[in-house]
Amino acid sequence: MIAFIAAAMLFPMLWSLAVGENEMVRIFLLSMTAGAALGGTMYAIGRKSDQEFYRREGLAVVSLAWIIGAAIGAIPFWLCPEFREQGNLAAAYFEAMSGLTTTGATMLSDIEALPEGLLFWRSFTQWLGGMGIVVLFVAFLPALGVEAKHLYKVEVPGIKKEGATPRIREAASLLWKIYLGMTAMVAILFMIGGMSLFDALTHTFTTLATGGFSSKNASTAHFSSLYLEMVKILCIIMAGTNFALYISILRGRPRDLVRDTEFRTYLAIIAAMTFLVMLSLVLYDQFPVGTALRDSSFQVVSIMTTTGYTTADFNAWNQFARLSLLALMFVGGCAGSTSGSMKVVRLVVVFKMMLREVQKFFFPKMVKQVKLGGKTMPEDTLRQTAGFVLLFIGIWAAGSLFMATMCPDLETAAGASIAALGNIGPGLGMVGAAENYGWLPAQGKIFLAILMVIGRLELFTVLALLVPAFWKE
Amino acid sequence: MIAFIAAAMLFPMLWSLAVGENEMVRIFLLSMTAGAALGGTMYAIGRKSDQEFYRREGLAVVSLAWIIGAAIGAIPFWLCPEFREQGNLAAAYFEAMSGLTTTGATMLSDIEALPEGLLFWRSFTQWLGGMGIVVLFVAFLPALGVEAKHLYKVEVPGIKKEGATPRIREAASLLWKIYLGMTAMVAILFMIGGMSLFDALTHTFTTLATGGFSSKNASTAHFSSLYLEMVKILCIIMAGTNFALYISILRGRPRDLVRDTEFRTYLAIIAAMTFLVMLSLVLYDQFPVGTALRDSSFQVVSIMTTTGYTTADFNAWNQFARLSLLALMFVGGCAGSTSGSMKVVRLVVVFKMMLREVQKFFFPKMVKQVKLGGKTMPEDTLRQTAGFVLLFIGIWAAGSLFMATMCPDLETAAGASIAALGNIGPGLGMVGAAENYGWLPAQGKIFLAILMVIGRLELFTVLALLVPAFWKE
Repeated sequence: MIAFIAAAMLFPMLWSLAVGENEMVRIFLLSMTAGAALGGTMYAIGRKSDQEFYRREGLAVVSLAWIIGAAIGAIPFWLCPEFREQGNLAAAYFEAMSGLTTTGATMLSDIEALPEGLLFWRSFTQWLGGMGIVVLFVAFLPALGVEAKHLYKVEVPGIKKEGATPRIREAASLLWKIYLGMTAMVAILFMIGGMSLFDALTHTFTTLATGGFSSKNASTAHFSSLYLEMVKILCIIMAGTNFALYISILRGRPRDLVRDTEFRTYLAIIAAMTFLVMLSLVLYDQFPVGTALRDSSFQVVSIMTTTGYTTADFNAWNQFARLSLLALMFVGGCAGSTSGSMKVVRLVVVFKMMLREVQKFFFPKMVKQVKLGGKTMPEDTLRQTAGFVLLFIGIWAAGSLFMATMCPDLETAAGASIAALGNIGPGLGMVGAAENYGWLPAQGKIFLAILMVIGRLELFTVLALLVPAFWKE
Repeated sequence: MIAFIAAAMLFPMLWSLAVGENEMVRIFLLSMTAGAALGGTMYAIGRKSDQEFYRREGLAVVSLAWIIGAAIGAIPFWLCPEFREQGNLAAAYFEAMSGLTTTGATMLSDIEALPEGLLFWRSFTQWLGGMGIVVLFVAFLPALGVEAKHLYKVEVPGIKKEGATPRIREAASLLWKIYLGMTAMVAILFMIGGMSLFDALTHTFTTLATGGFSSKNASTAHFSSLYLEMVKILCIIMAGTNFALYISILRGRPRDLVRDTEFRTYLAIIAAMTFLVMLSLVLYDQFPVGTALRDSSFQVVSIMTTTGYTTADFNAWNQFARLSLLALMFVGGCAGSTSGSMKVVRLVVVFKMMLREVQKFFFPKMVKQVKLGGKTMPEDTLRQTAGFVLLFIGIWAAGSLFMATMCPDLETAAGASIAALGNIGPGLGMVGAAENYGWLPAQGKIFLAILMVIGRLELFTVLALLVPAFWKE
C-alpha cells in the first residue's frame, strides 16, 4: 500500500518534468525513494510471516492505509519550500490526510503560490482516496460487514473459503474502469468550458472524489461561467451516486437507478433544500432570483455531497441558509459513492425506525418491519445503522468540544468538527468558505486529521481497532 | 384537569388577598370562573359518554392537560395590566407553558414589575407541572409504555383489568407526600438563609420542579450568599433524582439509591463537568480558582438538571465552557425526576449500545446483551431508547432550522431550540443567561411553547397523537 502511494507520485512528477519544475521533480523522486524504502522494508519483514489474512488483518490494513498513507503523501508537501512558508509538519500531514480522505479542507492561505506539480499531487490524492473508498465499500467491505451488504445493495456474498476473492476482484476492476471513464469524460467537459489541461485535470480529480481541493485561491468561483458551474453540479451529483448502480447499468439494468430509494431521496433532498435556501436568499439577503438559484443549487450540491467547492461565501448568508448548509453536512451523498458523512440511505433507514417507534408507542404489540425498496431490513442492520448515526453525532459533539478550546466561537468549533468528520472541507465561521485552517494550532490540525480518517472509514472500521480483543493473539 | 388548574389559582389569590393586591384578586377570581365554566361545560358534555378509558384516551388526556392547561394558566397573565405592558397573548401562553412544563424560559424583561400574586402563580405553575410529570412518569406511564418500565425502575405492573389502579393510586399518593415534605424542607432551608417567605416559597416551587423561574430580575444572582447557593445546588440535585428511589428509601431500601447506575452516572457527570468547566474558567477567563469552582458547579448543576437558574452570565464565558453547558442541556437529570431533556439513563443505555456495535463490527457473530444495573435490557427497550435519542436530536435540529429564520445568529437558534425542547430555560446568545425571549415574534413564542410540551412529555406521548390510526374509531 505504501509502495502504491509512492508509485502514484510518478504522475505529478511527470507533470513537474513537463513544465520544468526541476526542484519538484527532485522532491518527488526523494519522496518516492523514501516510500519505496519504507514499503520494501516492511515487505521484507512481513514476507516470512505465514499468518493468514483474516478479518482482523483486513480491518487493520484499511485503517493503516489511510493513516500511514497520509504520512507518505505528506512528504512532498513538507519538502517543498513554498509549502513550508505557509505550514509546518502538522500542516503537511493535515493537507495530505485532507486529500486522501477526500475532505478538501486546506491550511493554505495562498494556494496559487505552490508549484504545479505539488498542486497536481494535492488533487491526485483525492482522486486516489475517492477510488479507494468506492472499491473498499462496494467491493471489499460488504464481504466483511453486517450492515454494509444491505445498505450498499451489492451482490457480493460473504467471504467463504472458496470463490469470494475472484468476485471481489471482478467488481473492483469494473469500478476502476467506470472511474477512469468518468475521469476522461469530466476532464473533456471541463476543457470544452475553457479550462486549461492542468485546471481541468486537477478539478476533475477533486470533483469525482467529491473532495473539493481547488488549484485556485478563489476555489470554483475562479471559473465563473454558468456552463462550468452546471457541468460541475451534474458531475458532483454523479460522483455522489452509489457506484454499485453504475455496475447495474453496465450489466443492462438501467432501471435500478431510477427505482433506487436512496438515489430518489438524494435527488429530492437536493431539490428541496435548493428551493428553501434560494427562498431564504431572496427573502432575507435580497438576492435576485436568478443569482439565488444559481448560488443555492451549487452550494447545496457541493456541501451535501461533501465536496466543498465554493462559488460564494455562504458564511455571509442569512442564518437559515447557513444552518441548512450545516445540516446538509451531516447528510452526505449515497452509500457506495465517493462522498462522505452519514449517507442518505442511513438517514432514510433511521427515519423509518423513528416512525415505527412512534407507532409502536401507540400500538405496543404491533409487529412491523422496516422496508427499503421493497426489501425487509434485518433488525441487525437497523441496529447497526442507528448505532452508526448516534456514534457519528456523538463523535461530532465530542470533537466540537475539543475544538472549542482553540476556536473563537462555537460555529467555528462545530463547523470544523463536522467539516472534518464528514469529509466536507469548509465549515462555518473562521473555517468558512472564504477562510482556511492555517491558523489552527498543530494539535488542532492533527485532531481534525484523525476525525477525517474516522469519518472516511465510516467509524466502525477505525474504532474496531480500539476493542481490546483486537490486539490479543 | 381544567378545573384542577383553575382551583390551584386559589393559592396565589390568597397571597394577593394577604398583600392587598385587589386587582390581582379580581383577576384570579375571573380566571378561576372562566376555568370552572370551561371545565364544567366539558364535564357536562362528556358525562353521558359511556366510552371506557383506554390507552388512547390516556395519551390524549396527558397531552391535552398541558396544551389546554397552559391556556387556562395564561389567563391571569393576560388579564394583568403590568404583564400586558411587556407582552401580548402569545407571550402569556409562552410564559404559562414555560411554567407548566418546568422550562423556565421567560419573555419578561422586568420580572419585578409584576404583582406578587402573579409571580406566585408563575412559580406555582412550575411546582404543579413538576409534580404532574413525576406522577405521570413514575406512577402512570410505566403501566402504558414499553420502554418506561425498564428505565424508570418502577415496580408498577402493566395495566390489567383488575388491581393496577389501586397500586397507581398508592404510588401517586406516596409521591405527593414526598414532594410536599421536600417543599417544606427546602422552604425552611431558604428562610434560614435570609430569604423572605415570598422569595423562599416561589424559589422552592421552581427549585423542586427544576423549573428555574425566579421572582427577581437577576435570577439567583440576586441572592448572593454562599450558603444559599450551596443549598440550592443540593436541592436541585435532589430534584433531579429519580423519585422512585425515594419511594425505595421510604420502603426501607436506602441502598437502592447508592447502587443505582443512573444516579451514580448523574453525580459523576456533574463532578467531571464541574471540574472541566472550572479548569477552562481558570485557564481562559482568568477566574480565581474559588470563583471558578463556585460558578461552574452552580451552572453545571443548574443547566444539566434543566433548572436554568443563573448566578453568572455564562454566555460571556470561554467557548469550551459555553459548549459544555450547551452539551449538558441535552443530558438532563435522572428519569422519574422533575428534570427535562433526554435523561442520564437513556444516554447510558445508548452509550452501551454503541459500544456493542463497535464490538459486533469486529466479532459479527457475537451475541451480547446490554445490561443496566445487572439487569438485561430487552431489545425492544433498547430500540425505543435509540429511537428516542435520535428523534430528540432530529426535533432539536428541525427546531433550530425554524428558529434560524428569526434569530440573529446560529447559537441563538440552536440554543433556543434545545432550551425549549429540553425544558431548560436560558439558551445561548440572544436567549442567553442575561437575556429573555421577549424579542421573539409571536410565531417563535408559539413554536417554542410546542417544543416545550413535546419535550416535557418525552416526545412519543405527543407524537402518538399524529399517528392517523389515533383518530380512527
